[in-house]
Amino acid sequence: MKTLRCRIEDNPGTMGEVCSAIGRTGANLGAINLVGLEPRHQVRDISVYLNDRKQLDAILAGLKSVSGAEVLQVRDEIMEIHRRGSIEMHSRVPIRNQTDMRMLYTPGVAQVCDEIQANPLSAWEWTGLCDRIAIVTNGTAILGLGDIGPLAGLPVMEGKAALLAEFVQISGVPILLETKDVDTFVETVVRIAPSFGAIQLEDVAAPSCFEIEDRLKESLDIPVFHDDQHGTATVVLAVLINALKKTGRKAKDCSAVMLGAGAAGFAVTNMLLDYGLGDIVLYDSTGPIYRGRTEKMNPYKEKLANATNKKNQRCPLAEAFKGKDIFIGLSRPNMVSQAMIRSMSRNPIVMPLGNPVGEITTDEALAAGAAIAVDGRDVNNALAFPALFRGALDVRATDITVQMKVAAAQKIAALAPEGHLLPDPLDRNIHRQIAQVVAGAWRS
Amino acid sequence: MKTLRCRIEDNPGTMGEVCSAIGRTGANLGAINLVGLEPRHQVRDISVYLNDRKQLDAILAGLKSVSGAEVLQVRDEIMEIHRRGSIEMHSRVPIRNQTDMRMLYTPGVAQVCDEIQANPLSAWEWTGLCDRIAIVTNGTAILGLGDIGPLAGLPVMEGKAALLAEFVQISGVPILLETKDVDTFVETVVRIAPSFGAIQLEDVAAPSCFEIEDRLKESLDIPVFHDDQHGTATVVLAVLINALKKTGRKAKDCSAVMLGAGAAGFAVTNMLLDYGLGDIVLYDSTGPIYRGRTEKMNPYKEKLANATNKKNQRCPLAEAFKGKDIFIGLSRPNMVSQAMIRSMSRNPIVMPLGNPVGEITTDEALAAGAAIAVDGRDVNNALAFPALFRGALDVRATDITVQMKVAAAQKIAALAPEGHLLPDPLDRNIHRQIAQVVAGAWRS
Repeated sequence: MKTLRCRIEDNPGTMGEVCSAIGRTGANLGAINLVGLEPRHQVRDISVYLNDRKQLDAILAGLKSVSGAEVLQVRDEIMEIHRRGSIEMHSRVPIRNQTDMRMLYTPGVAQVCDEIQANPLSAWEWTGLCDRIAIVTNGTAILGLGDIGPLAGLPVMEGKAALLAEFVQISGVPILLETKDVDTFVETVVRIAPSFGAIQLEDVAAPSCFEIEDRLKESLDIPVFHDDQHGTATVVLAVLINALKKTGRKAKDCSAVMLGAGAAGFAVTNMLLDYGLGDIVLYDSTGPIYRGRTEKMNPYKEKLANATNKKNQRCPLAEAFKGKDIFIGLSRPNMVSQAMIRSMSRNPIVMPLGNPVGEITTDEALAAGAAIAVDGRDVNNALAFPALFRGALDVRATDITVQMKVAAAQKIAALAPEGHLLPDPLDRNIHRQIAQVVAGAWRS
Repeated sequence: MKTLRCRIEDNPGTMGEVCSAIGRTGANLGAINLVGLEPRHQVRDISVYLNDRKQLDAILAGLKSVSGAEVLQVRDEIMEIHRRGSIEMHSRVPIRNQTDMRMLYTPGVAQVCDEIQANPLSAWEWTGLCDRIAIVTNGTAILGLGDIGPLAGLPVMEGKAALLAEFVQISGVPILLETKDVDTFVETVVRIAPSFGAIQLEDVAAPSCFEIEDRLKESLDIPVFHDDQHGTATVVLAVLINALKKTGRKAKDCSAVMLGAGAAGFAVTNMLLDYGLGDIVLYDSTGPIYRGRTEKMNPYKEKLANATNKKNQRCPLAEAFKGKDIFIGLSRPNMVSQAMIRSMSRNPIVMPLGNPVGEITTDEALAAGAAIAVDGRDVNNALAFPALFRGALDVRATDITVQMKVAAAQKIAALAPEGHLLPDPLDRNIHRQIAQVVAGAWRS
């Protein structure tokens, strides 16, 4: 997104021409704010969403030919927001005078050290462990961008940390590991784990992410949680709970077709089956996952093959839609046609969640008969991971269990306002409410 | 320190008895604040500094026998300051609406990732690397407490991080390593180093700390700085610069006796020799360090033996003071007598810096003829490490060099107000001024 500060002659025609010139390039218009009034001109900040770098040049060329309009400045708001990072550490205590210093630091702090040495469990009370988590990535599956490395993925880690800080007062610390070796990854996280109250794995590619998570859970007595899997699964379940209600279905009577068997696909499948969904048939880039398939399998896909696809279907994707109640996409853009949606059962639930562009647009899905269509923009992990960590830390849980995730999904669903499938993550009140339920579900 | 909230009859005698009762236990009285007035009583918060846990019981017993005084509450201000830790992460950007979310996080953040992938060096501009450092410890030499482990040392790391945040807007992240193995320590820090703009080593015991620092400096292209060594050395040099001026001495004409050859002793010695001090004779718990000594040596003490003690003195400590201009103590309480101070040259400079209690009190040293006497409370590392890191990060230095430390010491000395040896670290203006000089000294 870029923001163009434009000086535009004060008549409706010129403004219209400016909008048209931008629209002709294929870019999308965002907010248009008035920032100044001159006798015969207006100064406006016009936000434009670009698909590629060339579009900006096209827009600037186009605006040059609009008489009465002048581009004063081009700003990139997104880059500016991330300049020097989106998070920073603050002192929680005032440091005004010598007494403050001597209580915060030496010699006073020695007393706090003594207390923790005498009673190590009290570190949860007398340090920030109870609020501090590592956000660990090796950069192998950053958003929809793929394996771009941990450094290029750092703005994503910082963004997550900013959400944690803002929504649930958790201090998230990005940890970048330049390794694709599972042993090295696990060993390093185990070594630094005493510094944190929990570990959030982030944007680690499948299938490594499964083994990393399993082994870390075994080694550590603090929660380990791969957000791309379980955060997504929790919010998908929340949507589904409300979508089933809205379409008058019961989970056990429904069957789903899912496209994508990566980290999110694996976790969503497990979660929905745990919740009692009738059946799921999974497709990856090789085709359907079924018992007996040999091509491009791994132990995690073997598990899926055994737990899903009751009829052991092997038909092509298009056929798999026939009669299904639910479609969930966690793969690539534009993989699904309207014909496929039309072949589903009446009033199907369609969730093309591929990031950043879904498997079919929600408009197309609705036009093809979907009762409910939500895409990745609606299914926001920020509804789940902050509250799951907050709840787990609040009761010093050693794990984030299936029960905690299901409880979170049910509470998220219950908090959706009338006429909506999900609550707004920006509503500051919801996160602590979900966290409370999560805490209650810990070994309850 | 504890704070006793007391209800005391409104007459000078009762207050006097309260103070006496506390004083008789050997505890020190701190601030006495008036927090409430009743018709015939005052409510006061009385701070007391305790030497051990039993003293509080003794005080409470003593106050019971003071008629007209009643203890309402015992608070521990220091513990309360450290409850849930002294630092927390904040979002630097507002998160008010969908637009904010979409710029901070997906899909907008993808643009920032793209930029860094195309130009990895720009991560310094578009992430918090430029302001984020790890504060790494294995807990083997926490303050004067010794090897209490990293968890019990965490409040110290958080305290340092709070000072960094407050003084120079650096985000310090405590990293606890439960290992005494140099290889494991170095390997782990190297693996997480991509997450940070610099590494602060903290409270790691000698001689491991030397090897760890040397090997990390070799492996990493970001600054690695052991504060117990170089922070201390920088402030000691700053004091000495002003003390030499005040006593009309020149560094090259002076000789010093130093007690303590741990991390700080090693670094202070190197720094003072770099600065041009005439000679230093070092003593550790075994005795003098000299060429040819075989008992309890290590490669770092060998280096010291070769660089110091020009006359290869082997006399007992008391004799070593004779005629010396400077004493620096970095060891244990009460090791130095007034007779030793009297045997030094006229108007000696005496720095008993042992933490938390010095080798001799400054009062005793002054009474024995010291022209200048400063202890660990005066020589505060907080004058050096925040500015050294700030300066290094500001110019993206790959190291914190001797030149940068000497420049910092000179600027610290220059910023001392008239009549003082050092500036006040609480003066928010000094840190950026020192940092600027540090930045200027990087490969200048």
